[in-house]
Amino acid sequence: MHKVFINTIPFGDKNKLPLEVLDQSGIEYLINPLGRKPSEDELIEIISDFDAVIAGTETISKKVINRSNKLKMISRAGIGLNGVDLVAAKERGIKVSYTPDAPAPAVAEFTMGLILSLLRSTHVSNAQLHKGEWKRISGRRFSDITLGLIGVGRIGSRVIRRTKPFGTPRFLVNDIDTESQNNLDFKLEWASKDIIYREADIICLHLPLTKHTSNMIGKKELLSMKKNASIINVSRGGIINEQDLYEVMKSGHLSGAALDVFETEPYSGKLSEIERCILTPHIASMSIDCRSRMEIEASEEVVRFFKGEALQNEVPQAEYEIQFENLK
Amino acid sequence: MHKVFINTIPFGDKNKLPLEVLDQSGIEYLINPLGRKPSEDELIEIISDFDAVIAGTETISKKVINRSNKLKMISRAGIGLNGVDLVAAKERGIKVSYTPDAPAPAVAEFTMGLILSLLRSTHVSNAQLHKGEWKRISGRRFSDITLGLIGVGRIGSRVIRRTKPFGTPRFLVNDIDTESQNNLDFKLEWASKDIIYREADIICLHLPLTKHTSNMIGKKELLSMKKNASIINVSRGGIINEQDLYEVMKSGHLSGAALDVFETEPYSGKLSEIERCILTPHIASMSIDCRSRMEIEASEEVVRFFKGEALQNEVPQAEYEIQFENLK
Repeated sequence: MHKVFINTIPFGDKNKLPLEVLDQSGIEYLINPLGRKPSEDELIEIISDFDAVIAGTETISKKVINRSNKLKMISRAGIGLNGVDLVAAKERGIKVSYTPDAPAPAVAEFTMGLILSLLRSTHVSNAQLHKGEWKRISGRRFSDITLGLIGVGRIGSRVIRRTKPFGTPRFLVNDIDTESQNNLDFKLEWASKDIIYREADIICLHLPLTKHTSNMIGKKELLSMKKNASIINVSRGGIINEQDLYEVMKSGHLSGAALDVFETEPYSGKLSEIERCILTPHIASMSIDCRSRMEIEASEEVVRFFKGEALQNEVPQAEYEIQFENLK
Repeated sequence: MHKVFINTIPFGDKNKLPLEVLDQSGIEYLINPLGRKPSEDELIEIISDFDAVIAGTETISKKVINRSNKLKMISRAGIGLNGVDLVAAKERGIKVSYTPDAPAPAVAEFTMGLILSLLRSTHVSNAQLHKGEWKRISGRRFSDITLGLIGVGRIGSRVIRRTKPFGTPRFLVNDIDTESQNNLDFKLEWASKDIIYREADIICLHLPLTKHTSNMIGKKELLSMKKNASIINVSRGGIINEQDLYEVMKSGHLSGAALDVFETEPYSGKLSEIERCILTPHIASMSIDCRSRMEIEASEEVVRFFKGEALQNEVPQAEYEIQFENLK
């Protein structure tokens, strides 16, 4: 009997279907019993007995992969692959698949909520009034700002579309893939990242974590932003330098920020001192419907693998190339 | 020289044009020097020397009106008229105008932000992570819920339109004016308020405060809502009974609430104990552009009045009838 270790939690919590998919194919499973991300050593210990892993954002390192003698497949519930050592997996002939489309609607909708909160400082007013302080803060509307998006792929393009009935802002966009603009029926201005930092009122990051994006935004970039600008990261931790963001905001620069992802998760750093910085625990993709879709797709890939069927979302060559390049 | 007392603050803060409009017509003005709403006695004292008032949400009572010998005009920057005793004003021949359209886009956009926060419990996650607690909460998307709107006039209809690119929810709507549905290209189900309380996942109130809406939602109505439902009031305080909402939420019922308006403002009540209740200090209309438009329109009405020109937004007869009826 094939055995799959489900490392990402919660799983099958709001919707049992992802577990039923495994049950119906006679695949045995264990859901991560620790209630948190396992350490590298814990993961090596647990995983030794399993043929496949359904993975979240935790690190599956070269060491884990090389010590997992039975492991034949990694099914990532989600999109980011920075946690999985693809190069090591390839060397050992371990297949890797992911669910790149499932989280996009939830992440885009969550991002819209963050933008609206930053535009009106709703989170600041809420925190103040919960402490008994009544201070009326003026804000701005979508139609009145310049929205900068770095990354206009699956998520960024959906954010752009959702602004339409609000009266669209001026869009400044940047992406390594200049084809991204083709599908969008909006007036987008392509700009360098430096121009986006300087001119945007709100900047959204919708990027993978790679050698090029790691620490992409530090003190220099943050200080080049307008004093009243805000920045949102719902993609991957480590793209904005957290210590630099803390120091810059502490000094009074930037009117707001929103981080859903962190270099180390769970996050417990000093940005919690900054009231105008929205902090959320990596939940952008966690709408019940999108989370279920991610989990079902991840389970279905495991089933396909063990039935010897073609995978539907095997990780494409480009993702391996990014990681090969990172090793250089 | 005509003199106008500007009671609503801030005024001319982000944009000086509303003050320039008065200056250019040679109208003298005083901006409320107290930095808060004046008491009835303070207002009587201050106002005695003025020909007109630019009013916010503060109460301009019969006593104030009857003791203001010079007062000839009240120009309300905003839409709600529950603070102004229209009957007393009419008896003394005091003209009253307002700015009913100016705040609508800002209020609708703010409401969308509140809905998105309630759908994903962003405000709860943010408060928890600022205390160092990392708890991943699942949420829902627009397309997955029933959205109940009580009041589908200027604001409610704009909220409905803004949901379009999110994948629209099921709409349950109620309004005393059944014509309201005509302009909306959406599938709306007209329902009684009781059905909305029972079936909606999120309920938005976009209503004036009248005899019929005062305390409209108390313990009975709140308890008839789903355990995981949320309610939003960005219209007028006093429509939801605050003590009842506190008790119901304290007992664990309702997954969220958002209040921007309160029976007594500034608010300092017990709802501040409830983390899943978003509290904001009457800022829904306070986007810089809409606030400026309100202020400019209010100043322009004062100028028209003193030039003897026709007012553009004199309060319509229907508003007087509501207040006459309230007196019964």
